Amino acid sequence: MSGPPRTTPHASTRAAVLDVIRAAGTISRVGIIAATGLTGATISTVVRGLIDDGLVVETGRAESTGGKRRVLLQLDPAARFAVGIHLDHAGITYALTDLSGAVVARMSRPGPGAASPGEVVGRMAAEATTLVTGAGIDRTRLLGFGLVFPGPLTPGGGMAVTPPSMRQWLEYPLGGELGRATGLPVLVENDAAAAALGELWSGGVGTSATFAAIYMGTGIGAGLLVNGLSFPGASGNTGEIGHICLDLDGPECWCGARGCLEVLAGPAAVVEQARGNRRLARVAGLRRRDPETASVLADFGALSRAAKRGDTEAVALLERSARYVAVAVRNLANLMDLEAVVLTGPSFAIAGASYLPAIREELHRAFFARSAHVPDIRLSRAAATAPAIGGAAVVLQSELVPLHRGLRLPDNLSTSERPMVEPA
Amino acid sequence: MSGPPRTTPHASTRAAVLDVIRAAGTISRVGIIAATGLTGATISTVVRGLIDDGLVVETGRAESTGGKRRVLLQLDPAARFAVGIHLDHAGITYALTDLSGAVVARMSRPGPGAASPGEVVGRMAAEATTLVTGAGIDRTRLLGFGLVFPGPLTPGGGMAVTPPSMRQWLEYPLGGELGRATGLPVLVENDAAAAALGELWSGGVGTSATFAAIYMGTGIGAGLLVNGLSFPGASGNTGEIGHICLDLDGPECWCGARGCLEVLAGPAAVVEQARGNRRLARVAGLRRRDPETASVLADFGALSRAAKRGDTEAVALLERSARYVAVAVRNLANLMDLEAVVLTGPSFAIAGASYLPAIREELHRAFFARSAHVPDIRLSRAAATAPAIGGAAVVLQSELVPLHRGLRLPDNLSTSERPMVEPA
Repeated sequence: MSGPPRTTPHASTRAAVLDVIRAAGTISRVGIIAATGLTGATISTVVRGLIDDGLVVETGRAESTGGKRRVLLQLDPAARFAVGIHLDHAGITYALTDLSGAVVARMSRPGPGAASPGEVVGRMAAEATTLVTGAGIDRTRLLGFGLVFPGPLTPGGGMAVTPPSMRQWLEYPLGGELGRATGLPVLVENDAAAAALGELWSGGVGTSATFAAIYMGTGIGAGLLVNGLSFPGASGNTGEIGHICLDLDGPECWCGARGCLEVLAGPAAVVEQARGNRRLARVAGLRRRDPETASVLADFGALSRAAKRGDTEAVALLERSARYVAVAVRNLANLMDLEAVVLTGPSFAIAGASYLPAIREELHRAFFARSAHVPDIRLSRAAATAPAIGGAAVVLQSELVPLHRGLRLPDNLSTSERPMVEPA
Repeated sequence: MSGPPRTTPHASTRAAVLDVIRAAGTISRVGIIAATGLTGATISTVVRGLIDDGLVVETGRAESTGGKRRVLLQLDPAARFAVGIHLDHAGITYALTDLSGAVVARMSRPGPGAASPGEVVGRMAAEATTLVTGAGIDRTRLLGFGLVFPGPLTPGGGMAVTPPSMRQWLEYPLGGELGRATGLPVLVENDAAAAALGELWSGGVGTSATFAAIYMGTGIGAGLLVNGLSFPGASGNTGEIGHICLDLDGPECWCGARGCLEVLAGPAAVVEQARGNRRLARVAGLRRRDPETASVLADFGALSRAAKRGDTEAVALLERSARYVAVAVRNLANLMDLEAVVLTGPSFAIAGASYLPAIREELHRAFFARSAHVPDIRLSRAAATAPAIGGAAVVLQSELVPLHRGLRLPDNLSTSERPMVEPA
């Protein structure tokens, strides 16, 4: 994990071999040669390195087929761990996973509030240490941290643009500073892309080749996966579904454009619309418009509960929002010919049932290639923790498959020094 | 090229070796072993097959480096050819290319008009034969045909949905029938995806990893390329930018949805708007609304000329269209984080100068990740022939890189029988 990152178009040999072993469960060296087409000498060298690093263990011998019985190899899930940290205005979520992606421990803590970025980085380093130590994991087995926050990201691992509630984070070199505070590699990813990866690693997606996780927190984003890997685009900032225009003359959005999905129908906009209705605001128990105390997620939850109690104006606001989100998802599906869509993130955890039927109906009615297929759509079973799990998965993927474009290692970090073995 | 198609996740060995030779220009067997990590025995077998098939030739020896001088190999561009056929209401365009993608001959013929699909298939088979024979190409060197038409596509190689002007083609098994008529393999692709590939192979794109060709003919579509390969999505129907919604309560589109870009601002809609203005229709010389005689492209050209002469109402109509197209391109760029956009197809060949500045300005002003980068945008230099060149490229890619998802070989075709050599 040194700079420049491993971004060669062909899979590195070590990562490819490790991934073959992971996928096979158990496999012999001869099996790896057959699966990869690499020479016996290369496989022998690579496997020796993986065993020396403790990533792979020998686990007995295959049944004899006449000749010498072959030694079987398998991944050691407890060989390495990773921590995903999801930093959001509403809270900071931590997930510790082993090399197989299984969650070993998780933890939620309050959001950054008005604290300075430096204070929050110090707190995250301490809280992550508590999680790792509390789980009894030897820190030398920790690959690093996957830090997840609202995008887009800067090349230095910070936020290039921030939502209004996180202005103090603008261009702060978050990845680099966390790396300095922890002494371990930090990879950064935006929340929606991490949520998509989290859905994949926690089994919510199946083998869908072209897949979007629609992530609704305070805002709305989408994480895109193609063949199980994040689809990063030119700068790691794909999936900005919250900022596609659905009304050329619509209200101004904080991003500088007009009529974006987020300003028309995102949770913050819905809460704002509800606050404008005095009866509804009172009945639902919404807070005042004071940015220090107001929480979009809390008020969105209160509004959603009012809708569930049958308040027709609350229902109407959520239905209006769902109609816009449904059309935006159809737009994304028409552009990317999606196989599947998962609704994830805290706002869908709160109100997904109000959105799912509208989106499903929209896709069945108007998806352009509906005569060929209609994208499968479902609610996440891990909507609140998917981004943190995905953060850990970003780190694990860097070990199991080559780093691909868009997963950025901040410039100023020391790196793990494990040698890469390449064929001659 | 037999069904099931070569859709293994790893490149087939033969195609990978061929692509290494193409990329290297000239290379020795030892060089291929180093580049691929495959065994000497595998390389020896694969290269022998490629030489036997005439795809690769020995071309002298490298300078001695002490040991035996190594035989150099290179691709023979004249070893294989492919024909791209672009079937559109406005005309049928043919492009014959060699294995390197260079255009050897091209030809334009009238569109299908009211002729039956069977008649048109017969005509295409005859016209393609004329092109190949006229260029003095031995038919045994013809890999096959890349047939390009408006999408979406059916699994049988026909049109799953048709624009209003091509209703008689609905679900007609076009690929299969052309295969039967010519006795050669036929691959099918939609016009926008083929145009994107045509831009790549004719050098209009450079090495842009994430790239869209916005294709404007009678309608509007987008071809998406990722790392030089078509991005097919779940069913080969990505890039339907003409059917993203920009106005939830907008006019009904023929696709069944409301407020699509195409019905708001596509060339057919613009021409229709101009026809509603009697003065403008007369001054620009638009034809009557008779579907037998009216041609959207001809009238769009007439309107564009009126705008160039300074007719303010013509200018206003094109500016309105450009504003919608610009926002739609920004939506696509925000979702896919595009590196580059090329405007191509006959309507951009006619009126691209009216669109390019508006789209460029929109991206610079409001592309979401503009602090990281702004997508490069330009007009195609081969806007009218890019889809046909792309059709040929689809066939060549099937030889040079493994068939990937979304390039569909119609079910009922005989296939080339060259053996695939895989490692042990």
